[in-house]
Amino acid sequence: MNLRFGRIAFACALVLLSATAFADEGMWMPQQIPELASRLSAMGFQGDPQAFADLTGQPMGAIVSLGGCSASFVSPDGLIVTNNHCVQGALQYNSKPEHNLMVDGYLAKTRADELWAGPGSRVFVTVSVKDVTEDIAGKIDPKTTDRKRFDVVDQRVKAKTAECEKGGLRCTVSAFFEGLKWFEIAQLEIQDVRLVYAPAAGIGNFGGETDNWQWPRHTGDWSFYRAYVSKDGKPVPFAKENVPYNPKHWLKISAAGASPGDLVFVAGYPGRTYRLNAFDEVKETVDWNLPRSIQRATDRIAILEKLGKDDKETALHVAQAIRGLNNGLTKNKGVLQGMVKGGLLSDKERMEKDFVKWIDADAVRRARYADVIPAIDAIVAERAKTRERDALLTEMPGVMSSSLGSAQTLYRFSVEKAKKDADRDPAFQERNWSRIREAQERAQRTLDPKADRALMRYALVDVARLPQGQRIDVLDKEIGLKPGMADADAGHAIDAWLDKLFAGTKLYAKDFRMSLLDKSTAEIVATKDSMVALAAALYPIQEASREKGKERSGALYRLGPRYAEALLAKNGGLVSPDANSTLRVTYGKVLGVPARDGLLYAPQTTLAGVVEKATGQGEFNAPKAELDAIKALRAGKATPYLDPKLNDVPVNFLSTVDTTGGNSGSATLNARGELCGLLFDGTFDTVASDYLFDAVRTRSIHVDSRYMLWTMSEVDGATNLLKEIGEVPSLDVKIAR
Amino acid sequence: MNLRFGRIAFACALVLLSATAFADEGMWMPQQIPELASRLSAMGFQGDPQAFADLTGQPMGAIVSLGGCSASFVSPDGLIVTNNHCVQGALQYNSKPEHNLMVDGYLAKTRADELWAGPGSRVFVTVSVKDVTEDIAGKIDPKTTDRKRFDVVDQRVKAKTAECEKGGLRCTVSAFFEGLKWFEIAQLEIQDVRLVYAPAAGIGNFGGETDNWQWPRHTGDWSFYRAYVSKDGKPVPFAKENVPYNPKHWLKISAAGASPGDLVFVAGYPGRTYRLNAFDEVKETVDWNLPRSIQRATDRIAILEKLGKDDKETALHVAQAIRGLNNGLTKNKGVLQGMVKGGLLSDKERMEKDFVKWIDADAVRRARYADVIPAIDAIVAERAKTRERDALLTEMPGVMSSSLGSAQTLYRFSVEKAKKDADRDPAFQERNWSRIREAQERAQRTLDPKADRALMRYALVDVARLPQGQRIDVLDKEIGLKPGMADADAGHAIDAWLDKLFAGTKLYAKDFRMSLLDKSTAEIVATKDSMVALAAALYPIQEASREKGKERSGALYRLGPRYAEALLAKNGGLVSPDANSTLRVTYGKVLGVPARDGLLYAPQTTLAGVVEKATGQGEFNAPKAELDAIKALRAGKATPYLDPKLNDVPVNFLSTVDTTGGNSGSATLNARGELCGLLFDGTFDTVASDYLFDAVRTRSIHVDSRYMLWTMSEVDGATNLLKEIGEVPSLDVKIAR
Repeated sequence: MNLRFGRIAFACALVLLSATAFADEGMWMPQQIPELASRLSAMGFQGDPQAFADLTGQPMGAIVSLGGCSASFVSPDGLIVTNNHCVQGALQYNSKPEHNLMVDGYLAKTRADELWAGPGSRVFVTVSVKDVTEDIAGKIDPKTTDRKRFDVVDQRVKAKTAECEKGGLRCTVSAFFEGLKWFEIAQLEIQDVRLVYAPAAGIGNFGGETDNWQWPRHTGDWSFYRAYVSKDGKPVPFAKENVPYNPKHWLKISAAGASPGDLVFVAGYPGRTYRLNAFDEVKETVDWNLPRSIQRATDRIAILEKLGKDDKETALHVAQAIRGLNNGLTKNKGVLQGMVKGGLLSDKERMEKDFVKWIDADAVRRARYADVIPAIDAIVAERAKTRERDALLTEMPGVMSSSLGSAQTLYRFSVEKAKKDADRDPAFQERNWSRIREAQERAQRTLDPKADRALMRYALVDVARLPQGQRIDVLDKEIGLKPGMADADAGHAIDAWLDKLFAGTKLYAKDFRMSLLDKSTAEIVATKDSMVALAAALYPIQEASREKGKERSGALYRLGPRYAEALLAKNGGLVSPDANSTLRVTYGKVLGVPARDGLLYAPQTTLAGVVEKATGQGEFNAPKAELDAIKALRAGKATPYLDPKLNDVPVNFLSTVDTTGGNSGSATLNARGELCGLLFDGTFDTVASDYLFDAVRTRSIHVDSRYMLWTMSEVDGATNLLKEIGEVPSLDVKIAR
Repeated sequence: MNLRFGRIAFACALVLLSATAFADEGMWMPQQIPELASRLSAMGFQGDPQAFADLTGQPMGAIVSLGGCSASFVSPDGLIVTNNHCVQGALQYNSKPEHNLMVDGYLAKTRADELWAGPGSRVFVTVSVKDVTEDIAGKIDPKTTDRKRFDVVDQRVKAKTAECEKGGLRCTVSAFFEGLKWFEIAQLEIQDVRLVYAPAAGIGNFGGETDNWQWPRHTGDWSFYRAYVSKDGKPVPFAKENVPYNPKHWLKISAAGASPGDLVFVAGYPGRTYRLNAFDEVKETVDWNLPRSIQRATDRIAILEKLGKDDKETALHVAQAIRGLNNGLTKNKGVLQGMVKGGLLSDKERMEKDFVKWIDADAVRRARYADVIPAIDAIVAERAKTRERDALLTEMPGVMSSSLGSAQTLYRFSVEKAKKDADRDPAFQERNWSRIREAQERAQRTLDPKADRALMRYALVDVARLPQGQRIDVLDKEIGLKPGMADADAGHAIDAWLDKLFAGTKLYAKDFRMSLLDKSTAEIVATKDSMVALAAALYPIQEASREKGKERSGALYRLGPRYAEALLAKNGGLVSPDANSTLRVTYGKVLGVPARDGLLYAPQTTLAGVVEKATGQGEFNAPKAELDAIKALRAGKATPYLDPKLNDVPVNFLSTVDTTGGNSGSATLNARGELCGLLFDGTFDTVASDYLFDAVRTRSIHVDSRYMLWTMSEVDGATNLLKEIGEVPSLDVKIAR
């Protein structure tokens, strides 16, 4: 870490970093916030930290999840703000080759114009979080086998969930601190979600892949949904006659944005972090998973882009997949760079050595914890033996959606349906049936036989190359592959087999696909659909792989809690659990950062940078309406969203808050609990913080609420929405659409 | 300019920029420096500004020109330091396919190992500068035609030069302020220059084209030459028995480098700036010259790189040309960006409008100046009529060297030789004959028939496309081109003609080429060499074009002085003339700068950045010896070159000094007149300052003397040189080569 610390000795950097130079690690559970009172107070917070623990109060009652993204209510009529990149599915669902909302954006002039976001779109409002550790992990006979332990926990989780959902809410029972703690989370699940407003891609995705994960940033990454419920206020599926949901709490969008030095909070649903992983797990990620994933994402993007060039419809089908792949690719490169070149992997190794030394230094600790890390390492080593095969089995269904993926779901659904609900795999329990149905409906907008075939071929070439001991026999037999076969020969065999496979499936037809949901296993098999037959053929090996996984999970239920217990004991004090897609709150300051040797990131960007970057095409195609509005601003047109210090409208800002994927769209709150921005990204240099927090350099990227309001007022003419959120729209706005 | 000023209102930027936020425009003639005493004193200079006016004193007596680059003496034994990129010709001259000094660098362990830099390598020491305005521009009958005026000035310059050179020095009579002033500059011309030390490309050209013109920068852009003279101290051509030259003055290389806020001076030979050009001239540059030049450089680089990939020898021949093209390409893109997007062209237009208004506002001024700008504009407009043709005529000889270029020189030399010396074109006067000879010798290391043919074909395709009225009849006839011909047809005709052309020339053979230097025009023509025949055929149209040029120059001798006189009167006070490859001094402070919206350039880089950027290959291939030395430093090895504030060895720094191409290799002097760095580049964002100085953002890039000394001590083991310059080499240096 010496280098990183050394760098900030530079005078200006000190100014940039101010007195609180170090970011505070922690994606805190809301109930932990009151315990942070003294830290927050030291940072100048004068509000009541207790407010964050009250999930049904202000501001937390306004914070929602979209499942994968975060969002928040911003009006009493259920208006929701999130990131533009979180509504791409809805834009894609409502796009046609001749009218691409992913490019043009959309503004509903009236509520009647609000567009259904499509099947599977959801808004989740967390209403309670309950410690159920004893119910889930308590009183398990230490002699229970790992496989049996998995079932015990699995049954308890399912029972607890069922009990909780009796009240009509959606419940999740989740492990925290490697299973040291379990919490039951109850959520209101709103099922009718509609698209209200998304700026054009030239604003909402300005900078595209070039700027993704980068600073300086000038992305207007916001969009608006509205939650709808039945006339009697119940969360029901989409229906025209549904009415806007009236949340008890919503956030005021601040017209003052955020300024350097401001204390800010981010409330949202961070996806996954791995900070409590053992060194060997992280090392495998660095040595194997990340390089492999980077290579494959690169290849897949190339494959999909080539297909998209030749076919406009395919392009539309795969657009979101490409964006997702690119996003992950860049992030993974950043993680790898941070871990290896940035030295975080070595830091992690040193930390684990210290940890082991600490355990060994005390007889009681040694007795209780000494076996844990070696046992975890053994699991990692054992899992590695078939990792190539297991990864391919997981990947073959494709990236976002594919007909093989559908076939596998449908086949497995038929198998699980035959069981008692309590015995079913959680994903196939009755509580998830409507989701399964919606996913199959939603797949229609991304299913593409050309893309599927090309990606499947890509995966099968690697299947052909699998070493002895990891062969997938059923595919060897079906396709005619042999270990050590020349790539060209394998390619011929694969092509011939794919010809038959794709000629023999009707899964791309929505009606046929949906009809299989209601069939038994025997009936499904009787359709003789080639893709279903493949899914059936692969089922046994996948089931065996899942069995192995359950045994490993059972072992980790046994080891993880002790690992976390020891780590918490060693580090002492208050620690936040790894992100697990549950509601969290993080805090920090608006602050620039030394980026690289000789380069500093200023904490804010402005409209001036939009003009600097605008090229009139591609990723930097700022709309003419925006450039005109900037000209008008320069010519003296008044706006309440001007920052007097910058003498410009702020666009994006950096902060020290601790976030990760899933936080996208999270409300950034000022010290008064108003929405002063939206979290939408982190800097490339610090994405490895998912594995080990870099307190010096970690920065999150937000869009300033003033840019959002200025654009709505001066560029997009979103008068109706401005009025709804209590802003006074500019009088002479040009209606740009 | 509002935007640019707005940007610096940001708090940290103010710290970066300190109290003296604005760069001082001015590449000052040494004799102007005493007039700047109060400005310098305000910046904290405590020395005697008069010292800069004494060209034969300290430090100016140590400042030399290499012809195109700047340099300085750093030891009493004629050791010279300059940029690594300024000795590429010498490295290329001494390279072989199996040992490429341009990649590996070179260190002479003893004086006997010092390598001749090759024909044409020179060191110029300016010994006097004399105002000869009256002699050159005085008493010309106002009624003299422009064409005649050119001859009058031409004859006077030649006579003055001849008179000055009687003392054995090399003299130049140069126009300043558009010919308002003329100065006679006398220089000692050292002809035996030897390569002493150049670091490996992984240090000297670290970052390559990617980092060229960029910040943050980590280039070790230094190299050492030594000047040799005859045993009796005379500047004579290279001869083994020559001895090192003993300059009266040399610079102490500071072991303290430069730090943020330090006042620094740069003394060197800036090439060309165009700040006093009229708006129409600049507009033509922006609208036509730069886009054309960018397109053609891009194409030529692609052509040469492709050839180099297929042929190692060609690659060696064209390496320097590619580097030059890339350098110019990037700079031109930067100029274009600054002029258009950066708004400098609009600023220039506004300034000229103000200028015209100022002239019109006063009857005396109107009478004296009102005709000047319209007349200049008319010249620009008239010249534009044949600019496509004229540009092609100039370009066809190729970029760096070509057989057609040789043929033209040789043919023209034979024509000019037949005249009296005073009547000859200055380039072909007897005083330049040895240079002409050397250039033909030197051409051997870059002449490449494959490259020539490919580039000539590229030019000829455009010759075929020339519009009616600009046709080059002799080529139309020779090749069989017609206006409006299809490209494919023209291409066939060109290819067939080039087959014959390249089959019929022996100019690639050095002996043959050199032999033509001694032949008369008739004898040269009698060789029937195809390339010579082409040169002869093109001679009349080129001579006509030169005639036109002389007429224009004559007009500018008439108009330029009045233009400059008016401009100086309007702006008042002390102004520096445009750069014209003569000795200049500029001053400024070590200072970072807001780079783009949201991004700040810190004023210094360090070894940490070398490690950050090092990839082990390509442009970022930092040598293992350097990375090992950095590891040793991190492990605690002491070095006197460590900056205690940075806790690292500084690598490069930014300053506000006003420089341009030609300044490369210039000594950067601290307030005590010691060499604290070498100027080697400017930032991309501000290269348009050649046309209009950007006082807010202009920054030059220097290598810190501490990086040079540290590398010599810890990486390259240049013990001999360190001792020679008075440094104490590290005791346990590994000899890296």
